Amino acid sequence: MEFDLIERIRRHTDVHRDDVVTGIGDDAAVVAVPAGRELAIAVDTLVEGIHFPVGTSPADIGWKALAVNLSDLASMAATPAWALLALTLPSPDEAFIDGLARGFAELATPFRLALIGGDTTRGPLTVTVTVHGFTTPGQALLRSGARVGDAVMVTGTLGDAAAGLRCLAEADAAPYAGLIDRLNRPTPRVAAGQALRGIATACIDVSDGLIADLGHICKQSKVGAEIDPALLPFSSAMLTHFHDADAIEFALAGGDDYELCFTVPFEKANDVAADLARVGCGATRIGRIVEGGAVRVIDASGATRTPARAGWNHFA
Amino acid sequence: MEFDLIERIRRHTDVHRDDVVTGIGDDAAVVAVPAGRELAIAVDTLVEGIHFPVGTSPADIGWKALAVNLSDLASMAATPAWALLALTLPSPDEAFIDGLARGFAELATPFRLALIGGDTTRGPLTVTVTVHGFTTPGQALLRSGARVGDAVMVTGTLGDAAAGLRCLAEADAAPYAGLIDRLNRPTPRVAAGQALRGIATACIDVSDGLIADLGHICKQSKVGAEIDPALLPFSSAMLTHFHDADAIEFALAGGDDYELCFTVPFEKANDVAADLARVGCGATRIGRIVEGGAVRVIDASGATRTPARAGWNHFA
Repeated sequence: MEFDLIERIRRHTDVHRDDVVTGIGDDAAVVAVPAGRELAIAVDTLVEGIHFPVGTSPADIGWKALAVNLSDLASMAATPAWALLALTLPSPDEAFIDGLARGFAELATPFRLALIGGDTTRGPLTVTVTVHGFTTPGQALLRSGARVGDAVMVTGTLGDAAAGLRCLAEADAAPYAGLIDRLNRPTPRVAAGQALRGIATACIDVSDGLIADLGHICKQSKVGAEIDPALLPFSSAMLTHFHDADAIEFALAGGDDYELCFTVPFEKANDVAADLARVGCGATRIGRIVEGGAVRVIDASGATRTPARAGWNHFA
Repeated sequence: MEFDLIERIRRHTDVHRDDVVTGIGDDAAVVAVPAGRELAIAVDTLVEGIHFPVGTSPADIGWKALAVNLSDLASMAATPAWALLALTLPSPDEAFIDGLARGFAELATPFRLALIGGDTTRGPLTVTVTVHGFTTPGQALLRSGARVGDAVMVTGTLGDAAAGLRCLAEADAAPYAGLIDRLNRPTPRVAAGQALRGIATACIDVSDGLIADLGHICKQSKVGAEIDPALLPFSSAMLTHFHDADAIEFALAGGDDYELCFTVPFEKANDVAADLARVGCGATRIGRIVEGGAVRVIDASGATRTPARAGWNHFA
């Protein structure tokens, strides 16, 4: 109920939307959903020491807390509208709060996302964001529509965030700034998700690692998938600093990439790659949907590769 | 993204709603707001050791985490619809999670509130609930409409939760079970809020203490308020176990009551009290709105009383 802090954060974004009837300062926000639209809602929590290392800058925490949620909207093909921020802090450190607000605002403002409410409480550093976006009825991208024969594709490049996390431990991290930036400032693929409306048969964002997240598509679509490790897209920073075997491991199991993994009818893969290049992230075909229920990684020799870990699980 | 735990919790409630297009299990929930309704949204976090004592039963934590949020919807005159639950836990203790789910479900089910999403993460015990309810355009109860001359009223009885918290320290807490139950299982005044639509000029729920919360109405309505301590409504449990001076202190500054404090045109106070008796909680006139900006407590002799503390502030 300490709205002063939430209002202080909101002023950094200062996005005005006509669909916000009552914003921060009452017991609840009141908003109006446009006629003919449905609402996509997601919530994700970041805990210090679990989702971001101790010592992460407040601005990076603010950016990432929103980014991981916008990534959920992106993977549904939703258009971001409103967020609420529940912030648990050891102390009301104004410099920390303003830093967090700056990072949050840098990402929120270009999406015209309004901060409409929240809560601040005392306790271990934890940031929970709830986001709301608009979808067109019947056009939300689900996990459940992949079909045998579909191409499996991903936006952007994979593994950078996990590589960045590894590089944080280096005495001189400067050469790895690009990778570390991908860890701290992931880019939610909102425009890509919207471009996939009516085209992708299934979609998910890569938060826990490719194997784990593609596994969710397989489970809910009742299919299997085969990935060719030679097709995985890597950044030039990754290829500069890491051997292929490490890069593949980061991509398959690392998590925190916030790229979209999606399936399309095989014959559309090239057109989709071109469409997504136009929205700035590109897309790469990395495999195909098959019968079965598992995600298998099969290299050119036909050998099946098993990653050292399947993906991120908080309670593993 | 560990939906298994959230889905496990949802099964305890198992409320089916036609307006939930996509529930737990995808990157976001998708819901449809009925035509002609607006959406009230609130979020509140409970932190162990701050909002509930260490040792509180999981079922009480589950109940209270939802109750404090439904109370926010109640004070807006909104009809509860959907919730998301972000749960941070030291370990995936199944007995704890099922206990929490039972408490959450006991409160959610009668309101037909559907659990549509959430997140589970590892870390210090923290429960964040985001709730959504429907309002009629122009009929949400705000904090900003109180007018000089209005009666100040509250539902139910005040101070019980703070008295209950005091009693937890007793060697034999059994005689105080009723008060402790008010601390652990607050009743959100949803029906009362709806009955006040079009009648109350301002409304807030008493979470931080009467003085602090009525102070929010005064600030946003640009008015003052005078409270007569002799009019404060107390439970029989309170009157049995505590002297008047303690009871008044609990009521004014204790917080955690989750009663509604609201203002109505003075001549409507009796009718409103009768209306709210019909929805089961009753209401009592405790003072009036005056010019100025402060909340003053004035006893029969005309003396102004200052409570020992103004209310709950996490960072005080």
